[in-house]
Amino acid sequence: MTTAVQTITEEEVFIAHEGGKLSVTVDRPITSKRDLSIAYTPGVAQVSRGIAADQDLAKSYTWASRLVAVISDGTAVLGLGDIGAKASLPVMEGKSALFKTFAGLDSIPIVLNTTDPDEIVETIVRIAPSFGAVNLEDISAPRCFEIEKRVIEALDMPVMHDDQHGTAVVVLAALTNAIKVVGKELTSLRVVVTGAGAAGIAVAEILLASGISDVILIDSKGALGSSRADLTGVKLDIAGRSNPRQIAGGTKEALAGADVFIGVSSSKVPTEHAEGMAEGAIVFALSNPDPEITPEDAESFASVIATGRSDYPNQINNVLAFPGIFRGALDASARRITLEMKLAAAHAIAELVGDDLAADFIVPSPLDPRVAPAVAAAVIAAV
Amino acid sequence: MTTAVQTITEEEVFIAHEGGKLSVTVDRPITSKRDLSIAYTPGVAQVSRGIAADQDLAKSYTWASRLVAVISDGTAVLGLGDIGAKASLPVMEGKSALFKTFAGLDSIPIVLNTTDPDEIVETIVRIAPSFGAVNLEDISAPRCFEIEKRVIEALDMPVMHDDQHGTAVVVLAALTNAIKVVGKELTSLRVVVTGAGAAGIAVAEILLASGISDVILIDSKGALGSSRADLTGVKLDIAGRSNPRQIAGGTKEALAGADVFIGVSSSKVPTEHAEGMAEGAIVFALSNPDPEITPEDAESFASVIATGRSDYPNQINNVLAFPGIFRGALDASARRITLEMKLAAAHAIAELVGDDLAADFIVPSPLDPRVAPAVAAAVIAAV
Repeated sequence: MTTAVQTITEEEVFIAHEGGKLSVTVDRPITSKRDLSIAYTPGVAQVSRGIAADQDLAKSYTWASRLVAVISDGTAVLGLGDIGAKASLPVMEGKSALFKTFAGLDSIPIVLNTTDPDEIVETIVRIAPSFGAVNLEDISAPRCFEIEKRVIEALDMPVMHDDQHGTAVVVLAALTNAIKVVGKELTSLRVVVTGAGAAGIAVAEILLASGISDVILIDSKGALGSSRADLTGVKLDIAGRSNPRQIAGGTKEALAGADVFIGVSSSKVPTEHAEGMAEGAIVFALSNPDPEITPEDAESFASVIATGRSDYPNQINNVLAFPGIFRGALDASARRITLEMKLAAAHAIAELVGDDLAADFIVPSPLDPRVAPAVAAAVIAAV
Repeated sequence: MTTAVQTITEEEVFIAHEGGKLSVTVDRPITSKRDLSIAYTPGVAQVSRGIAADQDLAKSYTWASRLVAVISDGTAVLGLGDIGAKASLPVMEGKSALFKTFAGLDSIPIVLNTTDPDEIVETIVRIAPSFGAVNLEDISAPRCFEIEKRVIEALDMPVMHDDQHGTAVVVLAALTNAIKVVGKELTSLRVVVTGAGAAGIAVAEILLASGISDVILIDSKGALGSSRADLTGVKLDIAGRSNPRQIAGGTKEALAGADVFIGVSSSKVPTEHAEGMAEGAIVFALSNPDPEITPEDAESFASVIATGRSDYPNQINNVLAFPGIFRGALDASARRITLEMKLAAAHAIAELVGDDLAADFIVPSPLDPRVAPAVAAAVIAAV
């Protein structure tokens, strides 16, 4: 356990952000009148005329087809909550930096000074001819579910809310390897997920889609199930498709005999509740910077432990998923990011661990340069 | 007269546009866990928290304050007219390439799939936290006047429709030098402008603001003036402040005895009408690719001739103005691009010609690297 993260001072962080983190560059230098006549008037008119006659040519002769818009309304930024558009921009610039670093993808951060779902969808649709894919980011639940659904329906391009599906893909990848370590079968697992927000719902969905039937989602009021009369929308829907044993109560009741704990809320889980888990317990305590259960506490009862932090082994980080998913979807000219593509991405991430698989090595490093190309290839094959 | 432009083949132009013309780069490489922890989580949270507490910090710690949005609805693209958002994108990418090349400014093209003025203004306002200035581009008249006015009022940042003011600034710069060649005074000039669209109105406005009272604007129905019962909006307004001799009719009547002809429409002007101009006539025939009067025809009666083309001397090109104007406005943290800043920009461009001033050298080359810095400095001084 290194303490690298802790030694970064606030001053260092601010200095590294001075002037922002991105720049735009020109692919072909303009140094002569001839260059100017090609890149701008009069030459560019021929390209515009060509696209006006055949809109499909925009894919080949503009940067839009390789450009991701990273779009946020600033309502659920990291652990900071609703901090607004301007304050979310450094995170979106960071996202763009990761797209470029890991997948060579160009992207532009677009932060919105509206939080109204109708206005957000409308705005994205209006600016959509400017890019080729939409990475929704840090939009609060339950608004994020409706917004993502409507933008997917409105646009003929890959759209994904990363807080949901990026997390879900990496969790599935990690779980695929963790069960090998403890010698269990995926479909017979009992899984408990705390947090029924963007990440929690998406994690539960991808696990259900992977054949795990015994998934219990827990929100601030307890386990989702038929005993809960207060549920609406997405929560009501998934309550009807999960928790098959109809466990009522909270983490104590749900974790009794559970094989897997996945924390994607910021609420602490009492260690004595988690101690009731089955033999060979798997604990993914992903809340940042404070895991729901600390690795130190989990060590006594869990066989595999993962967090969202870079200073513990097994970091579950979205950066393993989103650069390769968007790269693959754009390279394949996919119109949607499908469940099949997400499952393929998860398996590609899991496979990269290979023979190095161990309790403290169930996912590749976020910096492993093989990950995004492998994910992209798997996504393309799944189109 | 070279024929460089004509020798560029369509194939060459398309090849040069393959994959688009721009890329996004990361200012500080991410190669270690430490880099990742600074540029993204958990480090970036400190910057976001800082901006949430003090929105002004976004100027220092995001790229927005050095980022221009180049925004178009694709309704008046070059000489091609209303070709739509996607087809306009190569032009907007070209614009971004020029911003970077000449002023080192980062910019992102945003093309809109709406042409409704209310929706355009609304959309720009919603995405405004993402950037520091707005270059409106290729929006058709008269919508462009209303849209520019409303966006300026709505946003606390530099906003300029380049088709209007970029052209006006460069025309004023060229005219400032042209009158030195022919030995005339600015304020006593008689000026005729054909085309009462975005460029024509803005050119007339900057000339009136510079102290030239005898400006006649001509649209497709003739000279704007009190005899015209059909005028509304911007045209009606300027008709009441121009054409002091109340000349009625068309180019024949208006050009009789005129000192300056400025063509910013695509309509040809009969040479015999222009031959009625005063001694020492100045002809700016700016329509591309076909000047209103060809330089060959104008040679017999005009003392100074300029066009919008790169294959004749005296190219009046917006690229002399907009990169430096936005650079200066952003560097000075200006909240508006004022008339004073535009006049200062025009004079800075004119001054760069210096002792090289001649009938065939009244404006610097569009590739002259001194121009944007000089314009930026003049704009900053005029804030």
